[in-house]
Amino acid sequence: MLKPESVVIIGASRDPDKVGHVILQNYVNSGYSGRLYAVNKSGEEIMNFKSYKSVLDIKDKIDLAVIAIPAQFVPEAMEECGKAHVKSVIVVSGGFAEIGNNVLQDKLVHIAKKYDMPTLGPNCLGVMDPRSRVDTLFLPTFKLSRPQVGGVSFVCQSGAVGSTILDLISGEGFGLSKFISYGNAADVDEVDILNYLAGDDETKVVILYIEGIRRGKEFIEVAKKITRKKPVIVLKAGRTSAGASAAMSHTAALAGNYEAHEAVFRQYGFTIAEDISDLLSYAKIFSTGKYPKGNKVAIITNGGGAGVLTADAIGLSDSLALGKFSENSSMKLRSSMPQLVNIRNPLDLAGDADGKRYDDALSAISSDEGIDMVITIALFQTPGADSRVASKLISFSEKTRKPMVVLSIGAEYTKMHRIMMESAGLPVYDSPSAAVRSLSKLLKYSDYMAKR
Amino acid sequence: MLKPESVVIIGASRDPDKVGHVILQNYVNSGYSGRLYAVNKSGEEIMNFKSYKSVLDIKDKIDLAVIAIPAQFVPEAMEECGKAHVKSVIVVSGGFAEIGNNVLQDKLVHIAKKYDMPTLGPNCLGVMDPRSRVDTLFLPTFKLSRPQVGGVSFVCQSGAVGSTILDLISGEGFGLSKFISYGNAADVDEVDILNYLAGDDETKVVILYIEGIRRGKEFIEVAKKITRKKPVIVLKAGRTSAGASAAMSHTAALAGNYEAHEAVFRQYGFTIAEDISDLLSYAKIFSTGKYPKGNKVAIITNGGGAGVLTADAIGLSDSLALGKFSENSSMKLRSSMPQLVNIRNPLDLAGDADGKRYDDALSAISSDEGIDMVITIALFQTPGADSRVASKLISFSEKTRKPMVVLSIGAEYTKMHRIMMESAGLPVYDSPSAAVRSLSKLLKYSDYMAKR
Repeated sequence: MLKPESVVIIGASRDPDKVGHVILQNYVNSGYSGRLYAVNKSGEEIMNFKSYKSVLDIKDKIDLAVIAIPAQFVPEAMEECGKAHVKSVIVVSGGFAEIGNNVLQDKLVHIAKKYDMPTLGPNCLGVMDPRSRVDTLFLPTFKLSRPQVGGVSFVCQSGAVGSTILDLISGEGFGLSKFISYGNAADVDEVDILNYLAGDDETKVVILYIEGIRRGKEFIEVAKKITRKKPVIVLKAGRTSAGASAAMSHTAALAGNYEAHEAVFRQYGFTIAEDISDLLSYAKIFSTGKYPKGNKVAIITNGGGAGVLTADAIGLSDSLALGKFSENSSMKLRSSMPQLVNIRNPLDLAGDADGKRYDDALSAISSDEGIDMVITIALFQTPGADSRVASKLISFSEKTRKPMVVLSIGAEYTKMHRIMMESAGLPVYDSPSAAVRSLSKLLKYSDYMAKR
Repeated sequence: MLKPESVVIIGASRDPDKVGHVILQNYVNSGYSGRLYAVNKSGEEIMNFKSYKSVLDIKDKIDLAVIAIPAQFVPEAMEECGKAHVKSVIVVSGGFAEIGNNVLQDKLVHIAKKYDMPTLGPNCLGVMDPRSRVDTLFLPTFKLSRPQVGGVSFVCQSGAVGSTILDLISGEGFGLSKFISYGNAADVDEVDILNYLAGDDETKVVILYIEGIRRGKEFIEVAKKITRKKPVIVLKAGRTSAGASAAMSHTAALAGNYEAHEAVFRQYGFTIAEDISDLLSYAKIFSTGKYPKGNKVAIITNGGGAGVLTADAIGLSDSLALGKFSENSSMKLRSSMPQLVNIRNPLDLAGDADGKRYDDALSAISSDEGIDMVITIALFQTPGADSRVASKLISFSEKTRKPMVVLSIGAEYTKMHRIMMESAGLPVYDSPSAAVRSLSKLLKYSDYMAKR
């Protein structure tokens, strides 16, 4: 499904407003190098593609069929796929269990089982893999930017939330391994997908948006397995009765009791997100692959107030603490810092701090055993901060074994530097609490790995 | 200080790396229409300005002197200002109580009192007023974007946090009335500033970043007064012992007990922010000037999952609840919505929802007495959403008396629409929790106003 050598779009259309048109268009634009076929009842030519009336007419082995036709016609199309020995199916069409049409959905599951043909959906966006260039999303690229290649795989029950988060990922430095939107989970579900990703070497970090879990026992099994290999960040929707009832009419998911879900997530080392932005914040830090040895944090800042707010965020955290610089570090700092700089943590380098001062400060504490993680605050509005600061932070982060994040808040000039640092693999945050929560989650997963 | 007809920059310099150079440059660039003078010990010409050796040499009435020279020379410069009958002073220079130099700071206060010359700072960024074009910030505009004219005044003890938030405000639709960074608060402090802003008609909303409060009793007096007239959003740094100790070495502030501060803030109707991003989120909704009659929220969405997450955020809120559509609204919705749309709250318009569908949905509930506020989720990645959706949301928000916010999450295409809506005064959020928290704060202030 993710590395198909041949794909057929069933419901490909000339009409640019039709889902089947956008999917075919995206395949053509993406540079997909496999064999591509279009199926349309009218058999008309579409975008220079010969169109077949049925998948049975295609004289080739098909790895993946993407079905984008009205719900009532889906079973027939799947039957034809089964007879044509199509290996896997994605049904993007909606109109099944999510609107109470369980009978139609059951038919679809029955056909999938009969032909042993794994089927994703219905009511989903399908899959995207920037390496194989598979992209079944029916959303044009001008609306939804596609992320670069990376190590984060994103599993999402919802379609729109999926596309939204994917769009956000396109602005992040870490890049995407796989995107899998599985909708109603009629056949292939979160358990199958996590099993697959556990063994996928291209996937270093998994993020998961989930509304309900069908197979509790199997979920626990795969949870145990996958979190031993890679971090999984989960956002569970339908936590409250208001949300659960909305989830029911969205993907027909039984949201279940959130506390029970949370207990399972915690026990098996999942990292729990409270909001969409958490998913990205946590994926960013986990993507670095660096883990802390302890809970002591150093704050290096060019803005006193931002240092105070970050110290507060650490004080409010349930796991992190401010470290104390060793005598050796303090001596080094005293000899390299201007007289006005107080040698304490948070270390306020002052508004005129330039790249060299950051480098001196970071070097001074780099081998300090009392410091396990570093939050470097670089406010690019200040007189001393420019691209040389960003460069020094990047080169230091490449050398150090301590997890390090940057906090930079601001408009255009800041964003430019943020992109510069993130594309070099250095996580940048835009609020003290996001930086602190992310480091705290990193530590928790690190502790989980050490204890298991 | 904020509407001066004449300004002198003491410490104006030819050297572009000097603070006094940047301040003068910014005055020239900003189009300030008052009379501008430069003072420099060398008396050299700077950027075509005749430079005076002392303020005493200037034969004009000076409303404001901005002092940007090394700390030890500040008292002498202030003495000269006093003798020259300068009306007010801003000392941007650092090197006073924040590094333990209390004696020097006391001298400065003594001179300010002696000449009855209100003095802001030291160790501050000074002031900015986009209407009068006064701008004493020593940060170049390419680093720090300047906000447009608006109704939000921002009072900030810290310099760097101030510049950072100001930079963020430049990207928001609401615009700035006054920016006042007051640093060590040696003479003019938060009480004086809030007193001034309480009576300032250009200021509709106040945001306040504070590290410590000196005059508790007077602060309570002004708090009582100002929140009867306009909302005040406060972020208090130094909440934890780690943060409080950092605050001490930053602006020499005694952070005090946070619970005590929080109790005062609550009692007098301040809106409490937990993070920098909250300051902006809350300012945005308060800027609309619309208040809810009750706590019932409607969610209109084009993405099911986003509706679920937002319903969750409301379920987790301590004050808001999902409303139930009246029979009349439900009938109207049933007749205008496609058959696949479930008539319930959250109302999922589906991914193909266009401007008309949003308009029909909003119109159907506009006079529903069971709905006090509206969260409209517009995910612009979806097939149906484009600028016509944004236009419809803007025109509806201009008509309705119910507070309405938009939730739009995503990259470039989304940001374009976000700017479009925000510049029309419609608050846009990028996470369900930010939207819900903001409406909740709006309701709390509205309740405070009703009870007083």
